[in-house]
Amino acid sequence: MALIVQKFGGTSVGNTDRIKNVARRVAKTREEGNQIVVVVSAMSGVTDGLIKLAKEIIPLPIEREMDMLLATGEQQTIALTAIALQALGIPAVSLTGAQAGIVTDGVHTKAKIKNITPKQIQHLLDAGNVVIVAGFQGQTAEGQITTLGRGGSDLTAIALAAAIEADLCQIYTDVDGVYTADPRIVPGAKKLNEISYDEMLELASLGAKVMQGRSVEFAKKFGVVFEVRSSLNDNPGTIVKEATASMEDVVIRGVSLDKNQAKLTVVGVPDKPGTAAKIFRTLGDAAINVDMIVQNVSHGGGTDISFTCDKSELLKAKTVIETLKASTGFKAVESAESIGKLSVVGVGMKSHSGVAAKLFEVLAQESVNIDMIATSEIYISVVIDLAKGEQAMRAVHKAFLE
Amino acid sequence: MALIVQKFGGTSVGNTDRIKNVARRVAKTREEGNQIVVVVSAMSGVTDGLIKLAKEIIPLPIEREMDMLLATGEQQTIALTAIALQALGIPAVSLTGAQAGIVTDGVHTKAKIKNITPKQIQHLLDAGNVVIVAGFQGQTAEGQITTLGRGGSDLTAIALAAAIEADLCQIYTDVDGVYTADPRIVPGAKKLNEISYDEMLELASLGAKVMQGRSVEFAKKFGVVFEVRSSLNDNPGTIVKEATASMEDVVIRGVSLDKNQAKLTVVGVPDKPGTAAKIFRTLGDAAINVDMIVQNVSHGGGTDISFTCDKSELLKAKTVIETLKASTGFKAVESAESIGKLSVVGVGMKSHSGVAAKLFEVLAQESVNIDMIATSEIYISVVIDLAKGEQAMRAVHKAFLE
Repeated sequence: MALIVQKFGGTSVGNTDRIKNVARRVAKTREEGNQIVVVVSAMSGVTDGLIKLAKEIIPLPIEREMDMLLATGEQQTIALTAIALQALGIPAVSLTGAQAGIVTDGVHTKAKIKNITPKQIQHLLDAGNVVIVAGFQGQTAEGQITTLGRGGSDLTAIALAAAIEADLCQIYTDVDGVYTADPRIVPGAKKLNEISYDEMLELASLGAKVMQGRSVEFAKKFGVVFEVRSSLNDNPGTIVKEATASMEDVVIRGVSLDKNQAKLTVVGVPDKPGTAAKIFRTLGDAAINVDMIVQNVSHGGGTDISFTCDKSELLKAKTVIETLKASTGFKAVESAESIGKLSVVGVGMKSHSGVAAKLFEVLAQESVNIDMIATSEIYISVVIDLAKGEQAMRAVHKAFLE
Repeated sequence: MALIVQKFGGTSVGNTDRIKNVARRVAKTREEGNQIVVVVSAMSGVTDGLIKLAKEIIPLPIEREMDMLLATGEQQTIALTAIALQALGIPAVSLTGAQAGIVTDGVHTKAKIKNITPKQIQHLLDAGNVVIVAGFQGQTAEGQITTLGRGGSDLTAIALAAAIEADLCQIYTDVDGVYTADPRIVPGAKKLNEISYDEMLELASLGAKVMQGRSVEFAKKFGVVFEVRSSLNDNPGTIVKEATASMEDVVIRGVSLDKNQAKLTVVGVPDKPGTAAKIFRTLGDAAINVDMIVQNVSHGGGTDISFTCDKSELLKAKTVIETLKASTGFKAVESAESIGKLSVVGVGMKSHSGVAAKLFEVLAQESVNIDMIATSEIYISVVIDLAKGEQAMRAVHKAFLE
């Protein structure tokens, strides 16, 4: 008998028929002799509908009340899922985040889990129940309802798996697992049987949309092995765990393409100590996330500083930098939106040389210019022309992974 | 400065524009220097929508989970109402029934309030907030979410008013108050300025749909004076309180017509002790509420026993009684659906004789036959032909109240 946490996202519980499907899957796992804790998100559309209602009243509703409002979405799903299990004759009890003992800090709409006291869950499991916990939510030590922000339900599942020392944590989604590349772009992409936390983290931060990085970080910190798999079939998914020696035999785990980045270049920055610091502190104060940074000697004197950020923050970043023009004396700000960030990721890179050289060769063969480069022990990213992004991705995937 | 509880039903908070209206009304009361606790129901349609979802899964969903599900309706409204008050610059904090300290027994979907610990409410009021409490819900001492059943939000408001010793409890609805009769049927109906708990209780049980009897009973038990008034205008409503001497100067307070009753007659019941008891115990065991009962000598031997019950329970009642035919030896069961129960209500009746005589005279003038009669110190009810119900109601209203 194993203790398993199963998490189902908003699409998997999007209507009552799908909730019944989830119940059948849980029932099957239980019939195999396992104890199960189910974590569910709000039915797809429900959270957006609630946000719309609040914004009809005021564009920026106060966050404590948004948590009070949004927490109802998951509460509805846990009740309906418990009802669907009972309809199959399986004893099931639903718990809100608060009832499940999930204690968070008081940062409403993006609270962090401080601790979990799974006494009630254990008690209900011991009595033979499937326990269904609302994802995405918790309460402060003072009893205020909080929500965990984007990807919060995955985090709930992984944190619960750690707290109850589950044998396995399954994250059900609408894809079969983690792929070597996006199969919609790269026909030769293959599902991975396993991937390390670090690789998964890089893929998340490099634009692969399987899971939020914070959930993976949490899993890594507490050593929670989890599986990403499909709620639409019975195929085994991808196991995410600490890197093992055998994993390093594979040099590259995957290729990702982030089309959501934009590039800014501050032209002709005077060679004065502290100027670059000033630019990036100002961006940081404005809560703009800067990704890759490159500095070069400028043709017209001084240096050129280029960096990438989310496309959605491009205008804000530009405006913020313009305010520094007089005080720093740079010449101009230029921006480019049609760029793509292509990355290859793999823990095997650490012990294998020549990955960068091979990547650059492949891109040269495809006549793709490299605009910026960033590297770490487990990834290399290059900024290239967006128009050539998918072609380059297929070529790189073929060279390293097929 | 007064401490006021204001309760708004599902229609009054039916969309965000109406919620904004509620906020404006609350804001106005606050600007007049009052402390306010607001109790709200689920937005109209929300509860029915949730029930529909659950019934898509199974016709009789388990009640604990229905409470988990339905409690989200009011939780959404409290958050949206708090947001609407904050949009007006008024500090407001929402509380679920559990957070507000409302402790109930564990009878899911129709829990009874056991006690209220309004510590959190007091604390938030003292800090200058409007406090918004979810109606219709509470939690057990063990932390299970419960709902209070039909009319639950009124009950929440009145129980909170008792617990925090409010100066006034206002029940906002879509009518101007309690009328001497339904104005849609009786054009001469007048709004009452005040009415006693007992009269209000009788009107509720006799078919007037202003409020559930249990809320009025609770108010009577704890001496909570409350006002029923409209959320659509600023007209004063009807004050409901303990009967005073001056109230008894008015003989009749109102006239009601209940079109929802049906009549059953068990024909030819043998004159054996215990037979009637057996019939009504069987009905009670089947949870059928029996209202008026009349027993007469039967023409064909034995006695005829007639009683009324809700039309919706007629078929069930008939079926239950048929099962007793062999063991009790009665001859037949007859039923009539087209009946109306006309009642006149007033505490003044106690000290004034001749009300019954006057009622019978008026009905005779209108050629209305009386089928059954029931009386108490403060009401007289007669069962008549439904077709003549409204005509009779107008005549009786005119004779006693115009």
